[in-house]
Amino acid sequence: MTYCLAIRTDAGIVFAADTRTNAGVDYVTSYRKVHIFQPAADRTFVLLSAGNLATTTELMHRLKHDVANSANVDSFLGCELPYQAAQYVGRTSRHIQETHSAALLASGVAGEVTLIMGAQIGSAPQQLFLIYPQGNFIEASPETPYLQIGENKYGKPVLDRLGTAALSLDEAARLCVLSLDATIRSNMTVGAPLDLVVLPATGGVAVDMRLDEDDDLYKALRAAWQEGLERAFAALPSFDWG
Amino acid sequence: MTYCLAIRTDAGIVFAADTRTNAGVDYVTSYRKVHIFQPAADRTFVLLSAGNLATTTELMHRLKHDVANSANVDSFLGCELPYQAAQYVGRTSRHIQETHSAALLASGVAGEVTLIMGAQIGSAPQQLFLIYPQGNFIEASPETPYLQIGENKYGKPVLDRLGTAALSLDEAARLCVLSLDATIRSNMTVGAPLDLVVLPATGGVAVDMRLDEDDDLYKALRAAWQEGLERAFAALPSFDWG
Repeated sequence: MTYCLAIRTDAGIVFAADTRTNAGVDYVTSYRKVHIFQPAADRTFVLLSAGNLATTTELMHRLKHDVANSANVDSFLGCELPYQAAQYVGRTSRHIQETHSAALLASGVAGEVTLIMGAQIGSAPQQLFLIYPQGNFIEASPETPYLQIGENKYGKPVLDRLGTAALSLDEAARLCVLSLDATIRSNMTVGAPLDLVVLPATGGVAVDMRLDEDDDLYKALRAAWQEGLERAFAALPSFDWG
Repeated sequence: MTYCLAIRTDAGIVFAADTRTNAGVDYVTSYRKVHIFQPAADRTFVLLSAGNLATTTELMHRLKHDVANSANVDSFLGCELPYQAAQYVGRTSRHIQETHSAALLASGVAGEVTLIMGAQIGSAPQQLFLIYPQGNFIEASPETPYLQIGENKYGKPVLDRLGTAALSLDEAARLCVLSLDATIRSNMTVGAPLDLVVLPATGGVAVDMRLDEDDDLYKALRAAWQEGLERAFAALPSFDWG
């Protein structure tokens, strides 16, 4: 499985992903699910992927190849607005899936990929999309500033409690780690190391870091959160029969 | 949908359930999902149900009728040990499902019911079971003191963080409310009022209460938890780029 999420705040977008992939529970490997494209100085695209690993692999090669071949085909370079990049990626993903769908269907395998994409083009406001396997997409909003793909349930409650567009980038990154860590505890097919990427509203990639399971900061975050939860739990009001 | 859970602590068992039932999202009603049977002074059975409401309705009538007719049929009165009660309930549930399965299958409806059952018979230790639609069952353990049925993902992280057999009954009840409340926030087919039942290790039913959405205690619990989470979040260590 996989769990990826991104939060769009007033200060920029934070992306986070686990790295575990598996075919069944008896073939588990580690892959980076964060893909950064900077095809020109005025534009950055950060993609997170959940679903079929082969479709993802082919899609990322294709997106890169299209940039190299941009005189002849659609690519990130030809997009004037972020939503056009979402259309382009959605279309390309669907085409790759269609190429393999008959063979995959015959084997009972799903070739689907769901993506999160943050896009910054020129001085236009950053945008954050969730691109479905069918190629259509939705967008983060002020009411729902986060998007999730893959195993999204265990990590949602903490986002609903604490996720707002007013978070600082550092706070949003910590919240992403909490959401991922909740998922890792409950689903063994989601696992560390974690990747964190920050795209500040001012442009460019400010942070691209990896948190290993035994990194001091990751351990300190987990311990502080557990301690804080225990303190919050101990401070709850009692039942009158308690 | 539905979300029910129970925690077996050293001090007894706490049961909790939402009350929302729905056929699609456009027919939502409210039903009690906690069913208490005390067929004799030496025995108490508390059942929580998730799944087909008609199967549940028939099953509860049948369990009650079997007690009245216990001279001739299996019933809660004939069980000497808690696990025999789990066998009896699982068998009865399966038989009711089989009665309707052809008609339901033709309509594309699932008649399945999953149950949680806490059982106390005489002076034997209490036992807490999860009974599958197929009639087999698993049991709460010291390592995993809680059992969940229905929409179980959103409410699991807080149980994994704080759920242990060492909790007091009051603490376990508060934890159940937190787990239910996390689910209610994220899934609109799970909803208040909530039912809480406490079966202390000393026997009998000590608490059978309902929490409405605007009850003072429920509101105070939610507010204190939100405040505690915000405080815990603010106290997390920062990234060095933060």
